[in-house]
Amino acid sequence: MTDSATNMRLKLPITCFILEIILIILFGVLVQYDKETDAREWHKLNHSDYENDFYYRYPSFQDVHVMIFIGFGFLMTFLQRYGFSSVGFNFLIAAFALQWATLMQGFFHGMHGGKIHIGVESMINADFCTGSVLISFGAVLGKTSPVQLLIMALFEVTLFAVNEFILLSVLGTKDAGGSMTIHTFGAYFGLMVTRVLYRPNLDKSKHRNSSVYHSDMFAMIGTIYLWMFWPSFNSAITAHGDDQHRTALNTYYSLAACTLSTYAMSSLTAHDGKLDMVHIQNAALAGGVAAGTAGEMMLTPYGSMIVGFLAGIISVLGFKYLSPILEDKLKIQDTCGVHNLHGMPGILGAIVGAVTAAVATKDVYGDGLEDVFPMIADGKEASYQGGIQAISLAVTLGIALLGGAIVGFILKLPIFGQPPDTICFEDSIYWEVPGEEESHEDQMTDVRTEEAEKLNC
Amino acid sequence: MTDSATNMRLKLPITCFILEIILIILFGVLVQYDKETDAREWHKLNHSDYENDFYYRYPSFQDVHVMIFIGFGFLMTFLQRYGFSSVGFNFLIAAFALQWATLMQGFFHGMHGGKIHIGVESMINADFCTGSVLISFGAVLGKTSPVQLLIMALFEVTLFAVNEFILLSVLGTKDAGGSMTIHTFGAYFGLMVTRVLYRPNLDKSKHRNSSVYHSDMFAMIGTIYLWMFWPSFNSAITAHGDDQHRTALNTYYSLAACTLSTYAMSSLTAHDGKLDMVHIQNAALAGGVAAGTAGEMMLTPYGSMIVGFLAGIISVLGFKYLSPILEDKLKIQDTCGVHNLHGMPGILGAIVGAVTAAVATKDVYGDGLEDVFPMIADGKEASYQGGIQAISLAVTLGIALLGGAIVGFILKLPIFGQPPDTICFEDSIYWEVPGEEESHEDQMTDVRTEEAEKLNC
Amino acid sequence: MTDSATNMRLKLPITCFILEIILIILFGVLVQYDKETDAREWHKLNHSDYENDFYYRYPSFQDVHVMIFIGFGFLMTFLQRYGFSSVGFNFLIAAFALQWATLMQGFFHGMHGGKIHIGVESMINADFCTGSVLISFGAVLGKTSPVQLLIMALFEVTLFAVNEFILLSVLGTKDAGGSMTIHTFGAYFGLMVTRVLYRPNLDKSKHRNSSVYHSDMFAMIGTIYLWMFWPSFNSAITAHGDDQHRTALNTYYSLAACTLSTYAMSSLTAHDGKLDMVHIQNAALAGGVAAGTAGEMMLTPYGSMIVGFLAGIISVLGFKYLSPILEDKLKIQDTCGVHNLHGMPGILGAIVGAVTAAVATKDVYGDGLEDVFPMIADGKEASYQGGIQAISLAVTLGIALLGGAIVGFILKLPIFGQPPDTICFEDSIYWEVPGEEESHEDQMTDVRTEEAEKLNC
Repeated sequence: MTDSATNMRLKLPITCFILEIILIILFGVLVQYDKETDAREWHKLNHSDYENDFYYRYPSFQDVHVMIFIGFGFLMTFLQRYGFSSVGFNFLIAAFALQWATLMQGFFHGMHGGKIHIGVESMINADFCTGSVLISFGAVLGKTSPVQLLIMALFEVTLFAVNEFILLSVLGTKDAGGSMTIHTFGAYFGLMVTRVLYRPNLDKSKHRNSSVYHSDMFAMIGTIYLWMFWPSFNSAITAHGDDQHRTALNTYYSLAACTLSTYAMSSLTAHDGKLDMVHIQNAALAGGVAAGTAGEMMLTPYGSMIVGFLAGIISVLGFKYLSPILEDKLKIQDTCGVHNLHGMPGILGAIVGAVTAAVATKDVYGDGLEDVFPMIADGKEASYQGGIQAISLAVTLGIALLGGAIVGFILKLPIFGQPPDTICFEDSIYWEVPGEEESHEDQMTDVRTEEAEKLNC
Repeated sequence: MTDSATNMRLKLPITCFILEIILIILFGVLVQYDKETDAREWHKLNHSDYENDFYYRYPSFQDVHVMIFIGFGFLMTFLQRYGFSSVGFNFLIAAFALQWATLMQGFFHGMHGGKIHIGVESMINADFCTGSVLISFGAVLGKTSPVQLLIMALFEVTLFAVNEFILLSVLGTKDAGGSMTIHTFGAYFGLMVTRVLYRPNLDKSKHRNSSVYHSDMFAMIGTIYLWMFWPSFNSAITAHGDDQHRTALNTYYSLAACTLSTYAMSSLTAHDGKLDMVHIQNAALAGGVAAGTAGEMMLTPYGSMIVGFLAGIISVLGFKYLSPILEDKLKIQDTCGVHNLHGMPGILGAIVGAVTAAVATKDVYGDGLEDVFPMIADGKEASYQGGIQAISLAVTLGIALLGGAIVGFILKLPIFGQPPDTICFEDSIYWEVPGEEESHEDQMTDVRTEEAEKLNC
Repeated sequence: MTDSATNMRLKLPITCFILEIILIILFGVLVQYDKETDAREWHKLNHSDYENDFYYRYPSFQDVHVMIFIGFGFLMTFLQRYGFSSVGFNFLIAAFALQWATLMQGFFHGMHGGKIHIGVESMINADFCTGSVLISFGAVLGKTSPVQLLIMALFEVTLFAVNEFILLSVLGTKDAGGSMTIHTFGAYFGLMVTRVLYRPNLDKSKHRNSSVYHSDMFAMIGTIYLWMFWPSFNSAITAHGDDQHRTALNTYYSLAACTLSTYAMSSLTAHDGKLDMVHIQNAALAGGVAAGTAGEMMLTPYGSMIVGFLAGIISVLGFKYLSPILEDKLKIQDTCGVHNLHGMPGILGAIVGAVTAAVATKDVYGDGLEDVFPMIADGKEASYQGGIQAISLAVTLGIALLGGAIVGFILKLPIFGQPPDTICFEDSIYWEVPGEEESHEDQMTDVRTEEAEKLNC
């Protein structure tokens, strides 16, 4: 029996159909192939086919794509009865968000003669924006209906594009891996949404708000994919050449160092020294988040390692000591602990980026300064760039918190089919859930009986 | 106890050894490195090493490779007791088929002076052909022995190469992503095989012909990988430059739109609005199939979205209403529903391709017309190309249905160890299956007891 | 309750922190960006950004990276109660080893003016060295604490770098895919460690030293990823152009042939013809190992297939007949059977490499001879190169066995918290392990009750 309030039979199809039809109409009116994907335009350029940006961005795009759909999707399957929803709603809202993000980002910073031009770079940017929505999904995981999530994605993508426009286009902020635009924004937006959606009686679903052995194994698939491909994520839209190369390298070492500090802290903070899967699945990734802004800069390898090392420590401490306080005192029920994986490490990354920018010199960057800091190459002081970076963090936090609050109140409208407090973290509200497997002993008996019957007949 | 008829101890080794030894001999006689892989020939060309096609095809190849082995393999693990066979037989027949496909495709359209030349493009083509075999495997999943599957692969690869030769080389059809050559062919071939192998008493194995919670999670790994890498699949062998770039882009948006219509239809067609994993796992991929022919054309982004949107709707409706009819009325037992994922969306893709080709103009394609439609660039009417596309669909259906019928009768020979009706969808006929895990509560007790014993001694 | 001897609360954090802090200090003193990653240096070179090696190595790097973290990690999850440790310790020691390998390999063959220069090539080499450590981990799986594993990695990486230096830099050996440097070295090193750590009472943990259905499914994820990306592994650091292309091709066919012989032998050696998951998970990969040295040479496609075919046969026979003997007679407890997957196939690969090198001629390689065999192109006899290859195998075996013995004795020191014989292959010693899932029937009841209650109130 399904409560009629959570019955999706009309709500979900109507939402999906309306959104998709609007998308198709807007794409028809506004979107065009860019010069690298349009048959006529590309051939006008008279470039060698090998110079098409496809070859220099698409492998990175595919790595990012895996992070969005496998990485985020499976990372959230740790809950014992929420695997279908974790990977399935992740799939749904990501498929919507990447289309909507193409429009919103194109509208704010990709218009050419009234048209939005798209190609591999816009695909990466759309996936990035989607990542931000999925971070917010992590905060409300298990407590929202798919319709609520689609509505959240609709607004969050829009606000993401506004914030990104202010930072990258207006202020001239550097944030290629999105410590601010993606991680800080997604985390604090999601935290504010979950704050507004606070459920005082959530402990009635408490027994489902935990993992089982196999669900933790599935979650590790997500973790490892995020970890492995983070160097591609941070480098996906930096300038070509040394910039992409250096960003991947910095992120690689930041993550490696972060992994060691995560294991150390997880063991140290347990009274019996046992490792906690929650820390491994999440905190070990904080090094990627924290290298999101400064990764393309001349952070140096050991600088990257220090950043990752600190990010791991902060993140485990957050899971262990801060999350319970946030829940008890501030009424922030953060299912996946996105504050610890994306929030604090995102702020750390923003600060590291501001400091690294503020000490940039022509001596260190040489003629590469133009690629990384065009404003400094144009004559601005490095400290000015550093200041811009710091202001950008404040702007991001402001838009995320305010936007999250507003969207939270919208999602509170009692028409989107959200689950009751007693049945959160539960697939069977929104999914046909199959029965459990018979034990293999039964199966064996089963087969033997059948074989015996067959021989007898 | 294993029925002697299904005992593979001699049948499988003999089949594998004979096939592999024949392959090695034929490779020894017929196959050579192409100009991009041969040390002497490549260096004669005096190209820069960076111009080697490896760098412009290999990343796409690896994505396709993942789709073949992880994508198809895990997609079929949804059955509760057939995970070893799904991923394991997928592995076996794919490893055979890609070798045999190298020979057959090389024989029909890759001969140079009596030798088959191979390199990354032939690897992609071999994987494509393998994909077709795996689609047919989906139709007969759970009802065939590994020897039957190898025999099926042997014939299907051969017929695939014949059909592909007629289309691509004789008629001049465009089908880079294989809506016809791969999906339509593989689906209708497999449906015909399963029709001929009709089992009136299959309901005796009915309790195993369904999923359990964890098997659905494993299947989602397959689904998501297929979904993510489909842009690489459709673009893997298109012309370099804008063509690959545009194909990837079109497929990306087709899939995204398809995902939304799939979720909408899945919820809409359930009486309680609950999503059905079968739809999500399969129908959400139909957008990739349907963009297989027209993906490289100037389909426009919103055109791609419309195609994907329709494909998702058709596919869910197929699962819900058509599959039961096919089984009851036409005696087609289609385990994975390949008709809904590959059959109908493949035909849709062929039609979209024919229409898009028929309206192609020099104005839209510019100098890129040569890459996409060499016949039109050579002076043929666009409508002629459209007609060729339509004829190709008919040819493909004809060869697939006829070929499938013949191969079905061959597979009926009672010497290949096929499982009885009572023990279908069951790993333990062909695999050593381990027991079930003790419960973790037992384990804990277990460890505590051991520790207590250790302390006592 | 945890035995205080295996309590990691101080041991693991101290080890991790000390190691990481030493790494950061040494990186700060010794490591610099190379010319392709340094902003100033790259722009001095005046190359097009598209010529940066990032674009020609990074996709291969990411494939290797997936093999290290997903491939090895999940391959080892086959044990029923050791999934957290398999994938989690794999993660930890790999994250450490790749940092330490950067230093050690840089120290031995990457110094430029007193500094170690790093970029994508050093990242691939570091991952390769890490692979060797993970092979050794397979031999001791389930019987060591994370601290022991970190200590093992510390020494093994160092000895790996020494052996690699002797082979590649001193002797001029060719071994791009590491049949010797990675597989033979890692396997025999690990076998010697596990020999020294021999546990006479290991049968007390015997009931946990086996798989269950789902753990075998997780392990297949590892297998398939290793199999798919092995062509990228063997080709990752060969010369650009035809060399990388040819290596990937050879490995692809070697693996395909190996898969068929593996299935044949697995069925043939079982009394009832049933396939054994241990063989499929491991022996099917032996073709990649065996093509590690000769893969870049003009091995020919059919030559590659013969090598793979033999490797599969040897590997299954090893699992079936040799492993029990090694355990009973030589007291080598090889948990994952690394002798069968990496040991013997590694030696086979070394021999194939020596023979293929010995018959190399200018006629076959043309101007490509310089890339593959610089010594022969410089005037040395091919037989000399063959001799060097053979000597390299002996050197590798010597260093691996001697080094493994010494490190084994170090690991025996009773301070590293190794588990007792009675609690091997058990996650709960070092991890917080969650309880088991309620059955879905209970869940359903649960939900229905909750819903009923809600309606009543």
